[in-house]
Amino acid sequence: MTGCLIGVGVGPGDPGLLTLKAIEVLHQADVVAYFAKAGNTSNARTIVAAHLNGAEELPLLYPVTTEIPKEDAGYRDAIAAFYDTSAVAVANHLDEGHTVAVLSEGDPLFYGSYMHLHVRLSPRYPAEVIAGVTGMSGCWSSIGVPMTQGDDVFTVLPATLPEYELERRFADANAAVVMKIGRHLAKVRRALDRAGRLDRAIYVERGTMANAAVMKLTDKLDGCAPYFAIVLVPGWEQRP
Amino acid sequence: MTGCLIGVGVGPGDPGLLTLKAIEVLHQADVVAYFAKAGNTSNARTIVAAHLNGAEELPLLYPVTTEIPKEDAGYRDAIAAFYDTSAVAVANHLDEGHTVAVLSEGDPLFYGSYMHLHVRLSPRYPAEVIAGVTGMSGCWSSIGVPMTQGDDVFTVLPATLPEYELERRFADANAAVVMKIGRHLAKVRRALDRAGRLDRAIYVERGTMANAAVMKLTDKLDGCAPYFAIVLVPGWEQRP
Repeated sequence: MTGCLIGVGVGPGDPGLLTLKAIEVLHQADVVAYFAKAGNTSNARTIVAAHLNGAEELPLLYPVTTEIPKEDAGYRDAIAAFYDTSAVAVANHLDEGHTVAVLSEGDPLFYGSYMHLHVRLSPRYPAEVIAGVTGMSGCWSSIGVPMTQGDDVFTVLPATLPEYELERRFADANAAVVMKIGRHLAKVRRALDRAGRLDRAIYVERGTMANAAVMKLTDKLDGCAPYFAIVLVPGWEQRP
Repeated sequence: MTGCLIGVGVGPGDPGLLTLKAIEVLHQADVVAYFAKAGNTSNARTIVAAHLNGAEELPLLYPVTTEIPKEDAGYRDAIAAFYDTSAVAVANHLDEGHTVAVLSEGDPLFYGSYMHLHVRLSPRYPAEVIAGVTGMSGCWSSIGVPMTQGDDVFTVLPATLPEYELERRFADANAAVVMKIGRHLAKVRRALDRAGRLDRAIYVERGTMANAAVMKLTDKLDGCAPYFAIVLVPGWEQRP
């Protein structure tokens, strides 16, 4: 009997946004795995810390994150090898019949690293995914901004897109979220401005956490943004 | 002292996907309000039923739903008047100092009816929003389908869009979700086919509920879909 792989969405940061199912899985898991940058604590582990019941922990430590451009073949090879090795480490536990819960910030199947394990392991082992509250839902809820209503078209864009692509897509959606802002802040701002959407844009850093920073993007005067900062462009323009 | 308005995301259907914060709010609320079609039970109320602690209930019953086309002025007027009346009913409780929790399936600020109360009342009363797991996250998690990864562009489209618009947007996104399928199923299928995305599309009815129905859209041979059915078009085409 092999164990079960469970991708567990732990939500955007506030431990109160954990689901009952996530907590139940954490109580039952033999092993709790999580991705983290070497030398850093895992945000996902911090979110669930109060619910860990002595299960074995399996940190999966990225060999590189943003030090090498991700277009670089060296980055691609290092990351692919890392996911392969991580999958083997998890599989070793599954082969021993252990249930392995893999923590995933936000929702596991929505831009989450868990998916790299899921595609490698779910063909061979039973796998289950517990949906989580996404980072973007956490952000717009924490500031009470209606995002989408009725027939709005909603788009999520990575900030890595070229400027003209961002501009075109901002102009073509009623509501948008830009993820992974980091060093792309100035480009995102220019694209929003040219699409006529800059005035609606809201910048959110560490959304739902105690040290969150929220401001209109036009009030964000420096060019510094962490990788996980996001920009919200609310829709529902016909609101009463 | 006026009471506090709290929009509470109750997730996609599975009561296990309630958050700790949602349950805490339900335990503290003086009044629990929810939208429903007259004569029907409220799905949101069903999801939280085990956590209701005798708070007063305030059902807000839609005067019309799909009987009148929503382009019709009669529909618009009836619905606007209904939201106004509902806001007054909630405000009466807030004026008495009652905390009012308004249940919202999925996430309150993402296509939720709660927003109609929020925009009317949050300028005058303290308001808080508890993020929830969206219906779409519940659906793709329940079937373990990776949706978006890396630099994917992700789009949510209402099925009410014209066919050429759907086709154009399917071709222009890496991953897509189509909401409110209902009587638009045949149109959505044709648009996906012409955009070359039909083979990837998955049809989900009552996602995360005990009686969920999931199939490849190409295997959905009848033309019948409920209003809340959705279609998933997974991204991450370069997956290993």
